[in-house]
Amino acid sequence: MTPAELIARQAAYRDGLLSDTIPFWLRHGLDHECGGLLTGLGRDGAVIDTDKAIWLQGRAAWTFSTLAHTVERRPEWLEAAGHCLDFIRRHGRGPGGKLYFTVTREGRPLRMRRYVYSESFAAIGAAAFARAAGDGRAADEAIGYFATFLRHNFEPGVMPPKVDPATRPVRAIAPHMIAIATAQELRAALGDVRVGAATCTGWIDRSLAAIRTEFYHPELGALLEVAGPDGAVIDHFDGRTLNPGHALECAWFILHEAKHRGGDRDLLALGLGILDCMWARGWDPEFGGLFYFRDLKGWPVQEYWAEMKFWWPHNEAVIATLLAWQLTGDAKYAGWHRLVHDWAHRVFPDPEHGEWFGYADRNGRISTPLKGNLWKGPFHLPRMQWYCWRLTTELLAASGASPSAPRRT
Amino acid sequence: MTPAELIARQAAYRDGLLSDTIPFWLRHGLDHECGGLLTGLGRDGAVIDTDKAIWLQGRAAWTFSTLAHTVERRPEWLEAAGHCLDFIRRHGRGPGGKLYFTVTREGRPLRMRRYVYSESFAAIGAAAFARAAGDGRAADEAIGYFATFLRHNFEPGVMPPKVDPATRPVRAIAPHMIAIATAQELRAALGDVRVGAATCTGWIDRSLAAIRTEFYHPELGALLEVAGPDGAVIDHFDGRTLNPGHALECAWFILHEAKHRGGDRDLLALGLGILDCMWARGWDPEFGGLFYFRDLKGWPVQEYWAEMKFWWPHNEAVIATLLAWQLTGDAKYAGWHRLVHDWAHRVFPDPEHGEWFGYADRNGRISTPLKGNLWKGPFHLPRMQWYCWRLTTELLAASGASPSAPRRT
Repeated sequence: MTPAELIARQAAYRDGLLSDTIPFWLRHGLDHECGGLLTGLGRDGAVIDTDKAIWLQGRAAWTFSTLAHTVERRPEWLEAAGHCLDFIRRHGRGPGGKLYFTVTREGRPLRMRRYVYSESFAAIGAAAFARAAGDGRAADEAIGYFATFLRHNFEPGVMPPKVDPATRPVRAIAPHMIAIATAQELRAALGDVRVGAATCTGWIDRSLAAIRTEFYHPELGALLEVAGPDGAVIDHFDGRTLNPGHALECAWFILHEAKHRGGDRDLLALGLGILDCMWARGWDPEFGGLFYFRDLKGWPVQEYWAEMKFWWPHNEAVIATLLAWQLTGDAKYAGWHRLVHDWAHRVFPDPEHGEWFGYADRNGRISTPLKGNLWKGPFHLPRMQWYCWRLTTELLAASGASPSAPRRT
Repeated sequence: MTPAELIARQAAYRDGLLSDTIPFWLRHGLDHECGGLLTGLGRDGAVIDTDKAIWLQGRAAWTFSTLAHTVERRPEWLEAAGHCLDFIRRHGRGPGGKLYFTVTREGRPLRMRRYVYSESFAAIGAAAFARAAGDGRAADEAIGYFATFLRHNFEPGVMPPKVDPATRPVRAIAPHMIAIATAQELRAALGDVRVGAATCTGWIDRSLAAIRTEFYHPELGALLEVAGPDGAVIDHFDGRTLNPGHALECAWFILHEAKHRGGDRDLLALGLGILDCMWARGWDPEFGGLFYFRDLKGWPVQEYWAEMKFWWPHNEAVIATLLAWQLTGDAKYAGWHRLVHDWAHRVFPDPEHGEWFGYADRNGRISTPLKGNLWKGPFHLPRMQWYCWRLTTELLAASGASPSAPRRT
């Protein structure tokens, strides 16, 4: 990409983040009455559901804290982050300390799930806040949340399995991906602290090894979402279902780690290998955009909405392709980046009320005007805008043409 | 509708059932090696997943047994029904007798769910088989399965709730609808037998009362899927989410009961009221077809695929509108019937490999070539074809122009 193109991209990410996405959520989402963030928002930001997902409170806290630390120490960002973390602290914990999936506006319990993603996102929110605000209690909480996440996912017998393990033992990649991303954030915010049996880097290494040996199958050109023991393909609908957006997210977590380790060549090869094969599987040559699910064998997927286009896989693909281009200089990645950046920015942003729509049909028609729900909040989009603003700034600095660097890194 | 139109419709239902739908499933689905029915089928009927849903074994048994009893005592139909019921008998039961949701091809356990729909469909399959084959053991099993269904759904404390009942008590219409349909089938096959605390008619009355007082809100023009105590609207995404296809299915269960009771006027008014308001909410004026979900207040639905068009709501709507026309003679229902019959028959049938596709985008584009999965098997489509073949035959008989009556009623 030319410096002019990078400058335009940098402005798009920065202005989208600071003038659109973040103001939208601060204006419409913050619940000044009951605490925390409301995410059930209609097109114009009107609150259409008041139930709160705990994991989005943690994600929002991460976003606001990260901006306060890396862009500018704005009190409104720190307050919003503290507001979300405080809601988790006061209302998130169920019996035994595990966090709820959803609670009411006032914080009364609704659903406890088997999964522990409320914990992983509470961990990164608390860690980022601890760094931004110099808050020791938040640092301790971050470590505690991550320890719970690790215990439930990786200590055999703690999380009840969905499928009878005597018939079909199933391992999922998601806990490994989230372990990596969470450990990366804790390490960035708190240093390479010990959590349970290992340091953050130790947990990252453990999950990288699992991804490499169990889930990544270069001979099949695929990153599996679930696998049997020793990475065996489970030749059923669930076992064959690939999630290109999730895989591209995994690819950039790995590329980020390769960069953090000074350009580790094995990690670079792993991340690029995943990016290459899953881009090829995920990109829709007919209508553009990334399919949500694909079948390993090219057969029909069981999920009937598999061909829909969601906002977040495009956020992940924008990051993965730009980071791959930074790390390799390969024009292929700049080309993919242009494709997915342009397609996503043509389909998802709402020019009238701001922020992005979340869901489109295969052909790019927006299928619901929702701005947020229990899954969509201030996370994937602002994370992409923030991360790519930083990447474009680094790229411009390297090219000697940076007009607008983030104030702190 | 004119006699000529009725004759054409009658032929379409009969030929679709006997020359397309049933042969497709007998040819591609029956598992001669391991028993039961395989439903994970691609467009051409190729088996693309071998896992078996127990509820589809029961549904298939109902379809084949009902044909054997009402059309012709073909050995292949009775054998297929017995084959599916035997698979449930040998492999369906988990610890404590509750049926699994899914098992492997060989019958090894995969998933046990909280719900008891495996039981309700095993009940109607066994009851229909008992009548068709004169099999007393199947009759006993049908009663046992239905008793388990009733106990889990209606005995407080047996089924663990999804949402904390201390925060938000939620009642669902689905158990009442399925209680009605199951009791109707048992009564038709076995007589008005006692199951637990009541007769089949007693259970029907109980659930009709619940639908009338808790879920049907004529003042809002809606049949709710879930409600709070005393029918209170739960003003959240889940509480506002309406399912027009499900509601039209409920409407025809009630109209069927009104007809069974010699034209009961209160039931007729209830069924027509539900049909009228939920047709108005469900029919897509822009692209045609029935939306999957709508919001009570016209707000966005949380499910991103809410505007998709599935095969089964159209099956239910075809029945509901034709039955309403038979019971009222109101030209409005004949018009709606034409609309939905024509739209569904234009979008879903596969002229190349037979049977119907299951899933389309809002605009009617088929979104996956699947012919079957854990939800789609030989049930909704053949039930519609069978039921409407009978209705058109009755209508033609009443008009004095019947060329082709089912052999037995």
